[in-house]
Amino acid sequence: MADAHIIINESINAVLPDAAVRRALDRTRLSGSVTVIAIGKAAWRMARSARDALGSRVRSGLIVTKYGHAEGSIPGFEIIEAGHPIPDCNSMLGAQKALDIVDGLTANDTVLLLVSGGGSALFERPLPGVTLEDAQSLTKQLLSSGADITRINVIRKHLSSVKGGRFAKACAPASVFAVILSDVLNDPLDAIASGPAVPDTSTSEDALAILNYYNITISDNLRQAILRETPKYLDNVHTQITGNVEQLCNAAGRCAERLGYKTMILTTSLDCEAREAGTFAAAIAREIRNANQPVSPPCAVIMGGETVVRVRGGGKGGRNQELALSAARGIDGFDDIVIFSVGSDGTDGPTDAAGGMVNGGFAARCRSEGLSIDAYLNDNDAYHLLRRMDGLIVTGPTGTNVNDLTVILIK
Amino acid sequence: MADAHIIINESINAVLPDAAVRRALDRTRLSGSVTVIAIGKAAWRMARSARDALGSRVRSGLIVTKYGHAEGSIPGFEIIEAGHPIPDCNSMLGAQKALDIVDGLTANDTVLLLVSGGGSALFERPLPGVTLEDAQSLTKQLLSSGADITRINVIRKHLSSVKGGRFAKACAPASVFAVILSDVLNDPLDAIASGPAVPDTSTSEDALAILNYYNITISDNLRQAILRETPKYLDNVHTQITGNVEQLCNAAGRCAERLGYKTMILTTSLDCEAREAGTFAAAIAREIRNANQPVSPPCAVIMGGETVVRVRGGGKGGRNQELALSAARGIDGFDDIVIFSVGSDGTDGPTDAAGGMVNGGFAARCRSEGLSIDAYLNDNDAYHLLRRMDGLIVTGPTGTNVNDLTVILIK
Repeated sequence: MADAHIIINESINAVLPDAAVRRALDRTRLSGSVTVIAIGKAAWRMARSARDALGSRVRSGLIVTKYGHAEGSIPGFEIIEAGHPIPDCNSMLGAQKALDIVDGLTANDTVLLLVSGGGSALFERPLPGVTLEDAQSLTKQLLSSGADITRINVIRKHLSSVKGGRFAKACAPASVFAVILSDVLNDPLDAIASGPAVPDTSTSEDALAILNYYNITISDNLRQAILRETPKYLDNVHTQITGNVEQLCNAAGRCAERLGYKTMILTTSLDCEAREAGTFAAAIAREIRNANQPVSPPCAVIMGGETVVRVRGGGKGGRNQELALSAARGIDGFDDIVIFSVGSDGTDGPTDAAGGMVNGGFAARCRSEGLSIDAYLNDNDAYHLLRRMDGLIVTGPTGTNVNDLTVILIK
Repeated sequence: MADAHIIINESINAVLPDAAVRRALDRTRLSGSVTVIAIGKAAWRMARSARDALGSRVRSGLIVTKYGHAEGSIPGFEIIEAGHPIPDCNSMLGAQKALDIVDGLTANDTVLLLVSGGGSALFERPLPGVTLEDAQSLTKQLLSSGADITRINVIRKHLSSVKGGRFAKACAPASVFAVILSDVLNDPLDAIASGPAVPDTSTSEDALAILNYYNITISDNLRQAILRETPKYLDNVHTQITGNVEQLCNAAGRCAERLGYKTMILTTSLDCEAREAGTFAAAIAREIRNANQPVSPPCAVIMGGETVVRVRGGGKGGRNQELALSAARGIDGFDDIVIFSVGSDGTDGPTDAAGGMVNGGFAARCRSEGLSIDAYLNDNDAYHLLRRMDGLIVTGPTGTNVNDLTVILIK
C-alpha cells in the first residue's frame, strides 16, 4: 500500500496547476512583454506559477477566481474574486478589466491566458445592449424548456463579449497563448470556461433556430446582439492543454515504473458506473494473478476518467470510494493485489476523502467483523465501511481538478 | 466485420466438445482397454469424439444426456436420456448403469469420464437407504430456508453415491481420466456436474452443522447416510479441463493474430453488468484509437466471462446483445472499431441470436433512422434494435457452452 500512496502523491503533484503552467511555459517561447490573464478556480496558482517563471517580463496581470480562492497578493497582479457557479457583478468587472487591459496591445505583445474550470461563471461580460439579467433569464427559460447544455451554450456564446473566442479576438493583434487545465473528459476546448480563446462553431442562425424551436421570444436588442457573429477563425491563438487526465495517468505510470512495476494505461476516458468499473477492474486483476495477462506482475494497470454513481441508498460516498469497495469483492483472497481510485481534486463526492483503497484481504477483514460489503454498497455508503476498515484515501483539497485515477497494483 | 465473423466461428469451433475431447486424448496415453462414461448436455458429442479417437479400444460405453440431446446411435454405446434440470428415474438408471459398468474393473483398466454441464441432474443415485424424493425434499427445505447453493451442495454430495468424488471412488482400482467441458467461471471442478471425480472438501460434520443451522430435522436413515464420509483424496483420477472460456479466448486470440491483429486477453472472468462492460470496453477502444494504448492497432482486445443483465424493461435481449449495443454509444464516430459479444452456446438470452456486433458507425445509423439506443437499452430490448440495424450475430445452437466472448477489434 505504501507504493500506492507514492503513486497518488506524485501523479497529483504532476497535474497541479503550478507544475502544469511551468511545463507549458518551458515548452514555448513567448515573445516580448507578457500580459497575464488568469481565470477559473485554479487561476491564483496558475498565475503565481507564471509570475515565477516569467519574472519581470510580465507587464501586467489579472486574476479572476472564486471567492476565497486567492491565497495572497502577487506582485504586479490585480486579483478579483467573483461569483461561482452564478456569475455576479464581480464576474462582469473581471471581464471588463481584462478587456481594458488587452485593448490597445500591439502585434508585438503576448497575452498569456490561463484557463481552468469555473471560468464560465467567473468571467462574463454580455455584449453591449444586453444585461447580465437578460442573459440569465434567457438561460433559465431554455433550461425549463428542456434544452441541453450544448444548445444553451450556443445562445450564451452569442450574447457574451468574452466567450466563444471573443476574448481572444479582443486581444488581437496581440498573440494569445492559452494554457488550459482541463476538467472535462476528452478536453472539448469550448466546454472549458466556455472557450474564451476557442473559435465558435455555432452561428447566429443556429442560435435563432434554437430559440425558435423552444418557442422563446426575445426582445429586439437581444436579437440584434445574437445576430453579431462569433469568431469562426482565430489566427492569433496558440493553445496548450496541460494538466488533464492523460497527464495524471502518465504521471502515475512513470511513478509506478520507477517503483519497479510494468505499466499499462488501459483508458483515460472511463465513464461507466463506478461499481461496475470496480468489478471489471477486479476481473482484470484476477487475470493478471491467474494467467500473467494482459501484463505480468509486478504491474500497474492504470485507468483515468470520471465514473458515475447510481444512487440507490442514503449513505455517504463518492464514485472513487464506490469503485474501490466494489473491486474488493472481486479480488477477495487474491494476495498482493491493491486497487485504488482517487479524485485528483482531493474531494470524492460530499466527503472529506479523495477516494478508496482495498487489497485482496479487505473482504476477509470485513467478514471477520461481520460487515457486508454488498450491504454498504447497496446503501451507497462506501465512505463509512472504508473509514472503519482503514480504506479511505485522504489528501485534503489538492488545488487541481483533472478527474480521477484508478490503479490496479500487483506485486 | 468479416474478420469478426471468422474469429467467432474459429473460436467456437475450438471449444466444441468434439475438438476438446480429441485434444485431451491426444495429450494423454490411456492404458489398456477403455470404458467410456459420458454425462451432461454435451455427452453425446463428447462420446462420439472419444469413440472416433479410440476406436476398438473402447470396451464399453454409456452416454447419459438430456432428453432430445442424443443425435443417433454410436457402436458399442448405450444411450440413456434423462431429466434436466429436475432429475428423474432415468437419472437414477443412468447412474446405476454406470456404477454397474465400472464395478469389477481392475487396476489395468481405464475409465474415460466425459463431463459437461447438466450432469448434476442427469446423473444421480442416492446412497442406499435414501430415496430420490428424500434428497429432493431436503434440497427444497434448504432452498426455502435461504441456504445458498454451496451449502446445498454439501448436503447433496453427502447423500449421493456418485457426486463429490464417489463415482471415481467406485471406479477404483481402475484409473479414471476425466475430461471436463467447463461452463462455470474459474472452473471450480466440484461445481461442474457436482464433481463425480473430484475429492469432496466438505465433511459429514459440515453437512450436519448446516442442517442444524437452518433448523432442519432429518430422519435417522438420512442422518446415517450423511455420516458416511465422502472421499477426501482420490489417487486414481487424472483430470483434464478442456474447452473452457480461457480456451475460447485463446482461440480467438490465435485467430485474430493470424488475421494480422495484435492480441491482448484482458480477462477471462468478466462478471459485471453487461451494459457497463460495454461502456468500459468502448472506453478502452477509444484509448486505442486516440493514444495507441494499451495496444496499438491493428489489434484485438479479448474478454471472456459471463456478464449479468439488470432487467428494467420488458424488451427482448441477452447479455451479449446488451453489451454490444451499449458499446455502440461509446465508439460513436470512431472509424474502424468493431465490438462484438457472443455466447459460445449460440443462444444469448431467450433469443435466436448468439450475440451482437456494432461498429463506430452504428450509432449514426440509428440516429439517421430516428432510433434511440438509450431507449432500447432502457427497455432491455437490444435484440430488436440490433436486428433492425443488422447487428445480430446468429450462429444457431453450437453444441457447446463455455460462456461468452467479447472482442474489441480495431483495424
